[in-house]
Amino acid sequence: MTEPIRKVAEAARAAARVVAKASPEIRSRAIAGIASAIEAHAQDILAANAQDVAKATAAGLSPAMIDRLMLDPKRLGSLARAVAEIAAAPEVVGRVDRTETRPNGLEVSRVRIPLGVILMIYEARPNVTADAAVLCLKAGNACILRGGSEAIASNHALLEAVQAGLRAAGLPETAVQLVPTTDRAAIAELVKLDDLIDLCIPRGGEGLIRFVAEHARVPVIKHYKGVCHIYAHSAAKLDDAIAIVDNAKTQRPGTCNAVETLLVDAALAPTFVPRLVETLAGRVELRGDAAARALGGPTMGTATEDDWHAEYLAPILAIRVVDGIDAAIRHIETYGSDHTESILTTDPALAERFLRDVNSSTVMVNASTRFADGGELGLGAEIGISTTRLHAYGPMGAEGLTTTKFVVRGNGQVRS
Amino acid sequence: MTEPIRKVAEAARAAARVVAKASPEIRSRAIAGIASAIEAHAQDILAANAQDVAKATAAGLSPAMIDRLMLDPKRLGSLARAVAEIAAAPEVVGRVDRTETRPNGLEVSRVRIPLGVILMIYEARPNVTADAAVLCLKAGNACILRGGSEAIASNHALLEAVQAGLRAAGLPETAVQLVPTTDRAAIAELVKLDDLIDLCIPRGGEGLIRFVAEHARVPVIKHYKGVCHIYAHSAAKLDDAIAIVDNAKTQRPGTCNAVETLLVDAALAPTFVPRLVETLAGRVELRGDAAARALGGPTMGTATEDDWHAEYLAPILAIRVVDGIDAAIRHIETYGSDHTESILTTDPALAERFLRDVNSSTVMVNASTRFADGGELGLGAEIGISTTRLHAYGPMGAEGLTTTKFVVRGNGQVRS
Repeated sequence: MTEPIRKVAEAARAAARVVAKASPEIRSRAIAGIASAIEAHAQDILAANAQDVAKATAAGLSPAMIDRLMLDPKRLGSLARAVAEIAAAPEVVGRVDRTETRPNGLEVSRVRIPLGVILMIYEARPNVTADAAVLCLKAGNACILRGGSEAIASNHALLEAVQAGLRAAGLPETAVQLVPTTDRAAIAELVKLDDLIDLCIPRGGEGLIRFVAEHARVPVIKHYKGVCHIYAHSAAKLDDAIAIVDNAKTQRPGTCNAVETLLVDAALAPTFVPRLVETLAGRVELRGDAAARALGGPTMGTATEDDWHAEYLAPILAIRVVDGIDAAIRHIETYGSDHTESILTTDPALAERFLRDVNSSTVMVNASTRFADGGELGLGAEIGISTTRLHAYGPMGAEGLTTTKFVVRGNGQVRS
Repeated sequence: MTEPIRKVAEAARAAARVVAKASPEIRSRAIAGIASAIEAHAQDILAANAQDVAKATAAGLSPAMIDRLMLDPKRLGSLARAVAEIAAAPEVVGRVDRTETRPNGLEVSRVRIPLGVILMIYEARPNVTADAAVLCLKAGNACILRGGSEAIASNHALLEAVQAGLRAAGLPETAVQLVPTTDRAAIAELVKLDDLIDLCIPRGGEGLIRFVAEHARVPVIKHYKGVCHIYAHSAAKLDDAIAIVDNAKTQRPGTCNAVETLLVDAALAPTFVPRLVETLAGRVELRGDAAARALGGPTMGTATEDDWHAEYLAPILAIRVVDGIDAAIRHIETYGSDHTESILTTDPALAERFLRDVNSSTVMVNASTRFADGGELGLGAEIGISTTRLHAYGPMGAEGLTTTKFVVRGNGQVRS
């Protein structure tokens, strides 16, 4: 154990106590102050980001990676606005989730409290530095941030703004810290500190997440991949179904909630598959099973077993013809990743069966999988998505960064 | 990895799918069937238990241990009744926790679903075999049980009753399995199977729990110890305060929610401490700091630093005189275990401050710490208590064995 790493975590633990006791007004003032500081420090942040982008370009990083890394005045403005919105969002800490009076007169409530210290591990996107810090503060937590080495100058410049906001509200700067090194050994050390860190949220590729899970002693919110399915049932409304599949695949193919595999009922396939081929021509690469290829014409490639497992993060769609809802659910249970699945149908009983029997973290009827997102589902901002069932399942917002304690009010009760 | 251990977990995973899809009626029928089978098999269960008790006596186990191990017709009757009550308790699976319609018309609900496969590790008490199995079924889960070697004959006899109930309802017997061996190596293997097991709940001594945490790759609900505090504020009602401390210490001293340390305001101590000494004389060993000893007379022993950390599980009480609520909260933050703390006072503002600023899993005003129990707090039966904040914090019942999924109902929405 290197001393500096443990010191960071100890400082976070001490700061967490202060943040947890701070009033909602103080925490909101800090968050609003961070929004203002991001605007006030815009020059410095953009200059630091330009350094990162220049280094990344020189190192030959992919255009997609550089796009994720890059900040400009417009993106920075959106970031500041998103932060200001979190300051104004409803309080989670102290919220009473339920209250019951027991037969002996004890009043038992469950009250939301912060988790404590959150360790956030992420890759190239510098905006996560501000987003994550602010969501943790909203929920009354301290956080330790470990961003990717590509974004190091941008992250430090954003941290300056975050700490200016904390100072202005009288909160300790150590409530939000950046890990002083970006090597992976530091991650392996941090995730063992279960006396100081309450939760680790890794956001990034499967390799990063497996590395964290391998070494962790602290609880980890995991999200390995999003292999999302749409099942077009025989009673689907054809125009809507085409539009939804198109949107779910092409609106932003690089995201985890984009659809990867389309399951089409055999009865619908003869009308649906040719329409889809026509609609997506030149925009999406299609790979079908034998039945789909027989309907899809020469442009459709062949889907292999690997395709059913694939998270493409690209404009590629696998298509399989299935014989009814049971076969569709079996396919999802075999190949799915517990992320998001949508059924397209006008049969309400069948829709309800799908919603009940598929236990992925988000299940939908007649909607694009792209809605599986904290903002779209009404959580406010999102700190991540969990595809494991402990604590949080699906998109996770400020509430997911809290827990509940039991508060018991008596007037002298003893147990007999 | 030994094959039989993995096979048990694979069978549990397959059974969990069936249990999750079973209707509430089927699951209730299984649980009611288990209650009846416990009564029908009473002779066999008691005979098996007599074997375990004879072996434990011959091996020189402590009377406390043998008491935990022992079943008699009365205890078995209570167990059957407790199981029948769980069958009749309100359903958790499928419960809609909240619903919201988004501006675009999407209806977003959160619906309770089972966790999947629960691994329960426990020690001498054979009743946990039935209790845990039934709570897991109530929440739609399969479970793997690993009881202590002392109770092996009793556990197998109880498992027969459990499986009779499952069979009668048409559910797979593999929904509840006993690990075929009681050596610790099997635990170390099981807790690594994060592809097959969703949650591990170890119940027992700190050594067992640390062993599980050390080896686990699956999430673990941890409860190391219960160092519970009562803070008697200067404005406490004297008679109630004495009665509550007496109850919290003596009603069942061997439980985790018994009080260990009493913090008394300096202003109250001169009247309170002598009364307490008199009340507890001959029943509780008292160990005080210098200020308490000055008031407590010659029967009071000396509390050292070790006493503030101790979970006695015995009729021993540590007493410290403190100078107001801040000192009391500081003591709790330094020595507490996040289990249960109670303030005794007639000052409502002070009580609220204690309830707000102390973030143990259960905080109370004017009530005995012995109420920190799933049944007493209205959860129905209890599968365990968590003193870590992820997923569950405090007593955990059937609801704690579920999570929520997002259910989204649309009519053709796409994301723009």
